[in-house]
Amino acid sequence: MVSRRGAERIRAGHVWVYRSDVIKAEEVPPGAVVTVQEAGGRGRPPHSRTLGSAFYSTASEIAIRMISPKPTDNVHQLVRERVRSAIAYRERFVDDTNAYRVVYSEGDFLPGLIADRYNDVLSFQVLTQAMDLPEMRETLVAELRRAFDPAILVERVDARVRQLEQLPEKENKVVFLDARRRGGAPISPPSDVAAPGAPARQLEGSALSTEFSMNGIRFLFDPLAGQKTGAFLDQRENYAAAAGYARGEALDVFSYQGGFALHLARVSSKVTGVDSSRPALEAAEQNAKLNGREIEWIEANAFDLLRDYSDAGRHYDTIVLDPPAFAKSRRDAPAALRAYKELNLRALKMLRPGGILVTCSCSYQVSASDLLEAVMSASVDSHRNLRLLENRGQSKDHPSVPGIPETAYLKCLILLTS
Amino acid sequence: MVSRRGAERIRAGHVWVYRSDVIKAEEVPPGAVVTVQEAGGRGRPPHSRTLGSAFYSTASEIAIRMISPKPTDNVHQLVRERVRSAIAYRERFVDDTNAYRVVYSEGDFLPGLIADRYNDVLSFQVLTQAMDLPEMRETLVAELRRAFDPAILVERVDARVRQLEQLPEKENKVVFLDARRRGGAPISPPSDVAAPGAPARQLEGSALSTEFSMNGIRFLFDPLAGQKTGAFLDQRENYAAAAGYARGEALDVFSYQGGFALHLARVSSKVTGVDSSRPALEAAEQNAKLNGREIEWIEANAFDLLRDYSDAGRHYDTIVLDPPAFAKSRRDAPAALRAYKELNLRALKMLRPGGILVTCSCSYQVSASDLLEAVMSASVDSHRNLRLLENRGQSKDHPSVPGIPETAYLKCLILLTS
Repeated sequence: MVSRRGAERIRAGHVWVYRSDVIKAEEVPPGAVVTVQEAGGRGRPPHSRTLGSAFYSTASEIAIRMISPKPTDNVHQLVRERVRSAIAYRERFVDDTNAYRVVYSEGDFLPGLIADRYNDVLSFQVLTQAMDLPEMRETLVAELRRAFDPAILVERVDARVRQLEQLPEKENKVVFLDARRRGGAPISPPSDVAAPGAPARQLEGSALSTEFSMNGIRFLFDPLAGQKTGAFLDQRENYAAAAGYARGEALDVFSYQGGFALHLARVSSKVTGVDSSRPALEAAEQNAKLNGREIEWIEANAFDLLRDYSDAGRHYDTIVLDPPAFAKSRRDAPAALRAYKELNLRALKMLRPGGILVTCSCSYQVSASDLLEAVMSASVDSHRNLRLLENRGQSKDHPSVPGIPETAYLKCLILLTS
Repeated sequence: MVSRRGAERIRAGHVWVYRSDVIKAEEVPPGAVVTVQEAGGRGRPPHSRTLGSAFYSTASEIAIRMISPKPTDNVHQLVRERVRSAIAYRERFVDDTNAYRVVYSEGDFLPGLIADRYNDVLSFQVLTQAMDLPEMRETLVAELRRAFDPAILVERVDARVRQLEQLPEKENKVVFLDARRRGGAPISPPSDVAAPGAPARQLEGSALSTEFSMNGIRFLFDPLAGQKTGAFLDQRENYAAAAGYARGEALDVFSYQGGFALHLARVSSKVTGVDSSRPALEAAEQNAKLNGREIEWIEANAFDLLRDYSDAGRHYDTIVLDPPAFAKSRRDAPAALRAYKELNLRALKMLRPGGILVTCSCSYQVSASDLLEAVMSASVDSHRNLRLLENRGQSKDHPSVPGIPETAYLKCLILLTS
């Protein structure tokens, strides 16, 4: 039973109901499928109106995540169909890559489930009580294995989310590794796949590494390493777009494992990639070698380096700014906007006339127009005229759903200086 | 001399100052280049701060349009450079067409000037007192002829704007027609080109027609006919994008001269184009013939037809909605949003699962998020899940400038139904 405000939210196309809008949910177990009804109503006696079915969480502030406007009698069948539909969507709309997000939670009408493919490696992550239930995990894993027959299936864990959902602590782990990667050892039995309590196989990262390609560029990937699941993937189309405009001397700031830098290297005379993480740059250099590219990597704090380089009068023809999320909550937004302006101002000062600025934000709390405003303010301060060439978002394997603004978080603006 | 509020607007990256923010502008003649100063200031005695140079209008509500953050000593030289820079921008960023906007007013830092190329025909439009001055027209026309050597140069008139700027009434007219189009008659002397008072050459529309191509599709174009200068051009990249997703049976609503319909015909099994204007549909059919395509054209009110067709249970795989601007002023926005919702609701009801909706708005007063909200509300009412595939704007030959939101007016969303 949800309040009028909760019901309005659902009628406006969202799928979340916050706990404060839940009026009655007695003895609903963690992760249960519930039929959601609107409390009260205008009639007398008050009638309740069914809004659909949802996953329930006993712990999260997001108590309810709608899965259908109708009551659901077989949730496993529904989830199977949604996974198949998500896969069909990728077959239709994702090109030039064997690495992409296979399931994007609410963006694929499967709240709480993320799955990524990197060539023959599949990784998944569950983010809610409902998706963490043993039978649901069994359904998910079976469906993903059936569709992709991966050599390796990995579960990645978001420790903070598991804590918020009051789920037991877990580590990233391999849930399945087939004969192709074990030199002929027998395939692990299905019971091992779905049982979350089974002991994790201990393997060296390198044994799990795979090579994938994206836009014709090759990358090495270790599914248990790295900062997060899905690194690289959401920028895939923006990498290609940036390479369509880049030229001359290019600077890739917050380069991580070299996604933009490697794409820029195809069309630029010289590329420098900057990141504060040495392991990220080592992975980036491995990727550069794999593609036969020479890229200069600099381990540095981006703000310091941009200040030093712009003070020293260095100039570039192309600059990419792809910082981590500066604003994790709405409270951080003003400070984040100052940081975005600072970065963009330094970059604009270093761009030659006719130069290209590719500037990104993955903070959900910073909208495209917020970012544009920061860039524009930087353009006024630097006396540079700017034209907006492209106003882009995340790649299509991270589909966004109108009505669930949280499904659209990545902004990538491509601008021309004059 | 402008008020603090006017100065703030300029410092925020805009180029317009409204008359209500002009404090002193004594005896400034129409269209003059002025040095703009901020009144007052905090010092004592009050000092004034120079904000740059601008075109002045004695009539428009937009009294000042900035052209440079510095004083301008030779405005003709500045305008020539800006026109050249606009042309260089198109050479770098516009592909697959010989029809495009050459100069887009504030988007090219040339407030008050529009110029379009359609193969060997060039058309231009002046929208301010400054651009209408005889010497300025001479500079502009000379520069455009030098760059393009057009067979025909046409001036198109926006009667309402000329009235607002208190400029003398004019008609659309040919200002230049060269030997290529006159069977060897001598080229008209330059004096005829620039003199706005010279008698208009009377020619049949057909004698002026040209054929242009865009994304490999051929179009006939009569520079003195049609609803507005630049029809077709702002949607050029969206036409190509739509064709990248379209399939099956397609319906193009508000088809005008068939821009979307012709692009859809490449990838769809059947295309129907709807417009209320018979002359537009006749031009559309000419274009279809030119490309060897069979398209069904229906002369109808779009709202009526969508209601009838959706009530009759017709279904499509692809529907394009490209209505004219419903909201001309902010007051119209709520009614416009209701109209957008109505159109999109009808379209969603008619789309088969997996169908593509291409929905546009060219109302500046309706933002991309407003349009998304209307679409989302339609999706809730029609119980259709939607994924946003692309959130697009106008083509790059209509560059938008961060800080001048009015330079970005076109929205084109591509969505997948499920």
